[in-house]
Amino acid sequence: MSVETSNERAPAPKFDIALIREAHDRIRQHIVYTPLLPAPMLDARLGCELLVKAESLQKTGSFKFRGALNMILQLPPDAIARGVVAFSSGNHGQAVAAAAALVGAPAVIVLPENAARVKVEACRWWGAEIVTYDQATQLREVVAEPYAIGRKMTLVPPFDDHRVMAGQGTAGIEICEQLRALGKSSDAIVACSSGGGLSSGVMTALRAEYPEVTCYVAEPFGYDKLNRSLMAGERVANAHEARTVMDALIGRMVGVATFPVHQALGTRSLAVTDDEALAGVGAAYRHLRLVVEAGGGAALGAVLAGKADFKGQTVVVVCSGGNIDPVQYSQLLSDGLAD
Amino acid sequence: MSVETSNERAPAPKFDIALIREAHDRIRQHIVYTPLLPAPMLDARLGCELLVKAESLQKTGSFKFRGALNMILQLPPDAIARGVVAFSSGNHGQAVAAAAALVGAPAVIVLPENAARVKVEACRWWGAEIVTYDQATQLREVVAEPYAIGRKMTLVPPFDDHRVMAGQGTAGIEICEQLRALGKSSDAIVACSSGGGLSSGVMTALRAEYPEVTCYVAEPFGYDKLNRSLMAGERVANAHEARTVMDALIGRMVGVATFPVHQALGTRSLAVTDDEALAGVGAAYRHLRLVVEAGGGAALGAVLAGKADFKGQTVVVVCSGGNIDPVQYSQLLSDGLAD
Repeated sequence: MSVETSNERAPAPKFDIALIREAHDRIRQHIVYTPLLPAPMLDARLGCELLVKAESLQKTGSFKFRGALNMILQLPPDAIARGVVAFSSGNHGQAVAAAAALVGAPAVIVLPENAARVKVEACRWWGAEIVTYDQATQLREVVAEPYAIGRKMTLVPPFDDHRVMAGQGTAGIEICEQLRALGKSSDAIVACSSGGGLSSGVMTALRAEYPEVTCYVAEPFGYDKLNRSLMAGERVANAHEARTVMDALIGRMVGVATFPVHQALGTRSLAVTDDEALAGVGAAYRHLRLVVEAGGGAALGAVLAGKADFKGQTVVVVCSGGNIDPVQYSQLLSDGLAD
Repeated sequence: MSVETSNERAPAPKFDIALIREAHDRIRQHIVYTPLLPAPMLDARLGCELLVKAESLQKTGSFKFRGALNMILQLPPDAIARGVVAFSSGNHGQAVAAAAALVGAPAVIVLPENAARVKVEACRWWGAEIVTYDQATQLREVVAEPYAIGRKMTLVPPFDDHRVMAGQGTAGIEICEQLRALGKSSDAIVACSSGGGLSSGVMTALRAEYPEVTCYVAEPFGYDKLNRSLMAGERVANAHEARTVMDALIGRMVGVATFPVHQALGTRSLAVTDDEALAGVGAAYRHLRLVVEAGGGAALGAVLAGKADFKGQTVVVVCSGGNIDPVQYSQLLSDGLAD
């Protein structure tokens, strides 16, 4: 997720369930239908019924692949031939690289020089061209100019585009199908938010099926930009650069296209500390056998920490990504995270 | 899996796909439909197409739940009221405890005194009565007598029963459905084997759909009792008590009911060292974001180690369980397992 685009053009007129359904039809044969997992021991502890959507099992290890693919599959042949470009130090870059590879489009991923080696290598493995820049002295938009403008490659934004949001929201279509198969409905949905793409998409899908569902996002404590924006009635940036273990949730501002969706949904924000997010990571290990990264564990951590009253409810929680460095993960487990 | 039963009564006349389909209809509403995950980076390295059935995500963390539940759901009401008993230091015990809880049957799990605390606690959490014994001085069958004979509780064997085998084989029904949805077929199936319940069930299901599929089991190197039995044409026990990190695969002998199924399937055995199994655990972390235990990574490890020629093939691999101690897992990751 990393950094949001500054793409401020007006969004398409309407973001709704029809867009998400179209996206699902478009991408379903290429994505992993991720499971909705029960966690009975956590249910007993919390007094509610959790169902965890394991998007860490999605191709490239996060929900980002759904959005990138839905956008790229809609590009005309000449745009495919010119290729795509993305800014990302994290999950979005891998997703764009993999989605581009699927359709044979050239891809350029613009990354800070200090990006994690394993993430750089993953982008390169998918055949993407890697362009690095110095965050202290260079603007990524300038670095990307020869590609976005010079070579007319299409920028794939990480969230602020209806095609991307609808693709990310397809996880919500699956959740509804899975709930139906279980004979259950959902009282609440909890997903992490940085730019708000995943959450706006998934929650729009759930609200279409369950008009009474309450929508919660998990945001890093102190960097709850969606919360602050909802309170202000307009988009408000984080006051400071986010310093958090939830490195997938450090974007400065929510999207132009995502924000009104959350306003309409009446989304509530749950602020999650680093320790609470990591407790989510530990619970995912112990109770679900899922490897999730800190940002990916934030929503589960919010529920475990009792940030809202879920007693007696059926609560869908999205574990959004699983790209965590094994050395960091090992350290967390040896610190007793999964006890 | 731990120790097989010495239940030597004649098996029911025929084990076939019909039994597995019935089992699937019986248990499907209670089990997790586990995903079949792609691993494109491993495909590129190996020159084949892997599809990994993630049974580590099953309830209680292994495929064992399918088999225990299929047997318990077939017990008459009076047997349910008397309850069930199982010998297990591992995944089977948790599975029986959870399946018994589902139908409201009392459960007794007989465990060695030195069983891992976390496993004992999991059985107890499901409401089972725990009976421990000293492996050096007591026979578990004697310890279990007051329950199995005195209280007429039904013994749920870990593999050597057609109801258990059919239940475990339901993972194969799902695999066939998932392959169909992907428009693919399977050239080979690889699953770990100790008693042979999972493998005989899953492979029977796949062979019914793909008559040409080659069946491989992964067994711990030096304790490849199915391999030795297939060579001898009769059941042969391991020569020594198994000392391996694959603690789910240490049973002394394959089953009376499972062995002829493997003879008929023409199953081939791949012997896997501890390091090779752990490489499977590491690859599951890195490429699939799955927590798997050593025995659960044995089949993937066999493929990664090139134990058979899979070039150009579509290979289904079962990751069978994910109950691994976090301290051990942490140590493995810090040793570079997932690099």
